[in-house]
Amino acid sequence: MSNESTDLIAKFKLIFEPRSIAFLGATNDPGKWGYRILSNIINGGFKGRIYPVNPTKEEILGLKVYKSVSEIPETPDLAVIVIPPSGVPTVLRECAAKGIKAGLVITAGFAEVGVEGEGLQREMVEIAHSTGLRLVGPNSNGIVNPHDKLYSEMPPIFPHPGSISIVSQSGNIVGTIMRLAIESGFGCAKCISSGNEADLHSEDYTKYLAEDPQTKVILSYIEGFKDGSRFFETAKEVSKKKPIVMLKAGETPAGAIAAKSHTASLAGSYTVFDAMCKQSGVIRVTSLDELVNTGIALLCHPLPRGRRVGIVTAGGGWGVLAADACARLGLEVVSLPPETIKELDSFMPAWWNRGNPVDLVAGIFGDAVIKCVEVILRCPVVDGVIMLGLMPALPLEQFSPAAKEDERERLREALVSAIVSIFDKLNELTDKYKKPTIVASEPIAFSANLAKKIIRALADRNSVCYDMPHQAAAAFANLARYSEYLNQGNK
Amino acid sequence: MSNESTDLIAKFKLIFEPRSIAFLGATNDPGKWGYRILSNIINGGFKGRIYPVNPTKEEILGLKVYKSVSEIPETPDLAVIVIPPSGVPTVLRECAAKGIKAGLVITAGFAEVGVEGEGLQREMVEIAHSTGLRLVGPNSNGIVNPHDKLYSEMPPIFPHPGSISIVSQSGNIVGTIMRLAIESGFGCAKCISSGNEADLHSEDYTKYLAEDPQTKVILSYIEGFKDGSRFFETAKEVSKKKPIVMLKAGETPAGAIAAKSHTASLAGSYTVFDAMCKQSGVIRVTSLDELVNTGIALLCHPLPRGRRVGIVTAGGGWGVLAADACARLGLEVVSLPPETIKELDSFMPAWWNRGNPVDLVAGIFGDAVIKCVEVILRCPVVDGVIMLGLMPALPLEQFSPAAKEDERERLREALVSAIVSIFDKLNELTDKYKKPTIVASEPIAFSANLAKKIIRALADRNSVCYDMPHQAAAAFANLARYSEYLNQGNK
Repeated sequence: MSNESTDLIAKFKLIFEPRSIAFLGATNDPGKWGYRILSNIINGGFKGRIYPVNPTKEEILGLKVYKSVSEIPETPDLAVIVIPPSGVPTVLRECAAKGIKAGLVITAGFAEVGVEGEGLQREMVEIAHSTGLRLVGPNSNGIVNPHDKLYSEMPPIFPHPGSISIVSQSGNIVGTIMRLAIESGFGCAKCISSGNEADLHSEDYTKYLAEDPQTKVILSYIEGFKDGSRFFETAKEVSKKKPIVMLKAGETPAGAIAAKSHTASLAGSYTVFDAMCKQSGVIRVTSLDELVNTGIALLCHPLPRGRRVGIVTAGGGWGVLAADACARLGLEVVSLPPETIKELDSFMPAWWNRGNPVDLVAGIFGDAVIKCVEVILRCPVVDGVIMLGLMPALPLEQFSPAAKEDERERLREALVSAIVSIFDKLNELTDKYKKPTIVASEPIAFSANLAKKIIRALADRNSVCYDMPHQAAAAFANLARYSEYLNQGNK
Repeated sequence: MSNESTDLIAKFKLIFEPRSIAFLGATNDPGKWGYRILSNIINGGFKGRIYPVNPTKEEILGLKVYKSVSEIPETPDLAVIVIPPSGVPTVLRECAAKGIKAGLVITAGFAEVGVEGEGLQREMVEIAHSTGLRLVGPNSNGIVNPHDKLYSEMPPIFPHPGSISIVSQSGNIVGTIMRLAIESGFGCAKCISSGNEADLHSEDYTKYLAEDPQTKVILSYIEGFKDGSRFFETAKEVSKKKPIVMLKAGETPAGAIAAKSHTASLAGSYTVFDAMCKQSGVIRVTSLDELVNTGIALLCHPLPRGRRVGIVTAGGGWGVLAADACARLGLEVVSLPPETIKELDSFMPAWWNRGNPVDLVAGIFGDAVIKCVEVILRCPVVDGVIMLGLMPALPLEQFSPAAKEDERERLREALVSAIVSIFDKLNELTDKYKKPTIVASEPIAFSANLAKKIIRALADRNSVCYDMPHQAAAAFANLARYSEYLNQGNK
């Protein structure tokens, strides 16, 4: 690691791995953010020292309360600030005087609400610049670092440690992304609600995450840039190391107006933005679910060398929808060459459709399905496979409505193992051919708990099964786009 | 009801409400469709008589087996056919000779697999036409009528009785749609996998569903038409009574090739298709989830008179994304007039953003949120509201990690009631102002079972809560489109 990287990580260490926290605006009122965020820090299992500050209370959530920052018996690494906006400049000066070097300003009501707030925000920035106190926010929902059990955030969402990092100008979007990651079985590295970005900007966090060893993919939600060209210069460098996936909001006039009143962002031109994404390798997506699904695809799959797709499908309709989705996204559903058709002929049923998508309809089961995927994966005109439907690849044991509970439990365990084993085989094929196989399937388990168990078992071995054919196509297309950026850079 | 409608319903009664079924191709082999579909009929609780036919077996799944159709002691209403393709014409003749008037041909391997299959399919149609035997399929996954406990289908999916009907040229897509409906808490009226449509076509089913009293919305998946102009003539009439939502697959060259090998469909021109949808009031969608979400929106909401949207949001980022989605879909996120702003000023916190979306950030809770929705709904320049985030409208009781199991159970019940009560209030506002309020929210319950309970409680009162802001916008846009079609017709 370069000296510069080491410095950068050290600078952010106080924010993401604090040994102690001053909590300004702690309260006993469960309706207030000053209670809820403090609860989340405690319930999340933070291992360091917490110093709630409130001039009128003795004890909050079982913790001794300090009347002011100056009374705290050490210099905390991080100050979390949840007091009304007008008081923020004063406490920031007190924090600086105490020697605190990092602040997380949750308080809203600054540049996003008009002229007076803008003035307060400018004052904050001046204090930060003159004292060296670095600030997250204001108007932030907080930060999360599951690797250090730090959940200094609203709302109470506790992702497990993982490789997905999030930088978002909207706090509630951080929550949505964390929730979607959890639902997909994946954990997080660093989650940042950057708010109004008065001091630290999206590009600062992005630079840091590029160096953070726990971060493997960066998901970014942006409403507008303070300094667009600085952001894209950063992104261009970072993208060479780690992928950045971005959802840009405020692209329409109606959205731009909404963004202005939300995070005081000026949304800027769509066309310019799109060109800058392409030049800097930023993978642009258009919805929250695509943002998370793309991030997960980048964790689970090698990049395809090109856009040529083979589709193996358990259901005709899904195959047609996937082919449509691929074509719309600029992927090529290639014609299979005669030697591949011949190879498939040797074990596929006589009536197989001899085309791409390869339709498995009521024909082959179990390992023959994996064999079919392998034949397509080996095919030189194919850069990767989309596999639709896990059912035919599974052994034939069925849930019988008459089965007793212990027998059903055994069948459930067998189902989880069988699904995991399919993905293990696909991962072996991936290693062998250096090409991705992206899977989408109807859920195999109707019980919500069993479905969760399967999802988590897959995520733990870096595997994912998407719900819908178009999601598999979008994942392939976004991997291909990033692959093109990296290859272009190497030329 | 007209005589014509009565006739139509009578004609389809044998298919969807059979009193007795001959099952040709019944088997004891659990790997075969002839076993699985028979199991599903039995497990689904079919109340009529079932006559499995197999020349070499005595008993299958506990039922007495007949050596041929001619031996069955009555004339069954419906014949379900799951025997190899080459034998189908012969058994169809036997069925006709027995006096059977309706057949469901599950068997695949006809026009979708080439010249020989095409010949067999032509022969089937000739038998049908000359004997009056009406046929569903071939290459069908079956039909479902939960109101009559008829689940004559693959795979084992058992929706409860409801108002959503499905006509799909792909069998596996019927399964996906039923599954998505169930996951949203909604039931089904009639579900039809129409397969190759050798005899009965999508338009025949659509006409029937228009008259079926249990059907309130028709979801259609189409790969290609046998007779496009006949379909759209039918659709034009049906759309005046009941909405048809359609997902058209095979729109791209790659998709069209896939459709040809799947259901022998010729996909036709995209532009022509799009124009015909507009002229006939068919609501065209582009993904499976949009198909189901739109169907549900039509069940739950009155149609907006126009495209002017008010957005009330608990989270800024969701508001921006919803505004973007609305603008992209041709909805207008209107400026709120001064009198509406003034009314909101009277109870909103001083720092509220005074714009549309109305951002509730950390300001108002409980009934004040409903009041806010009402003010916007009453506003004369607004045709309906998109409400994002249920959390602020809920009472403040929280799950405490320390709570005991019985206390947690009480809190869970309270949560379900509180959410139901929000939707009851919104439904009252809908009745009062004749405008829809479409809701999307982060899930309030993290436990999968509790989430299911909430979803089902809402569906049972014709309410829905979408997962994502863009889904609420798409639902609004599709309702507005259908409203425009109906109003245009009235002019």
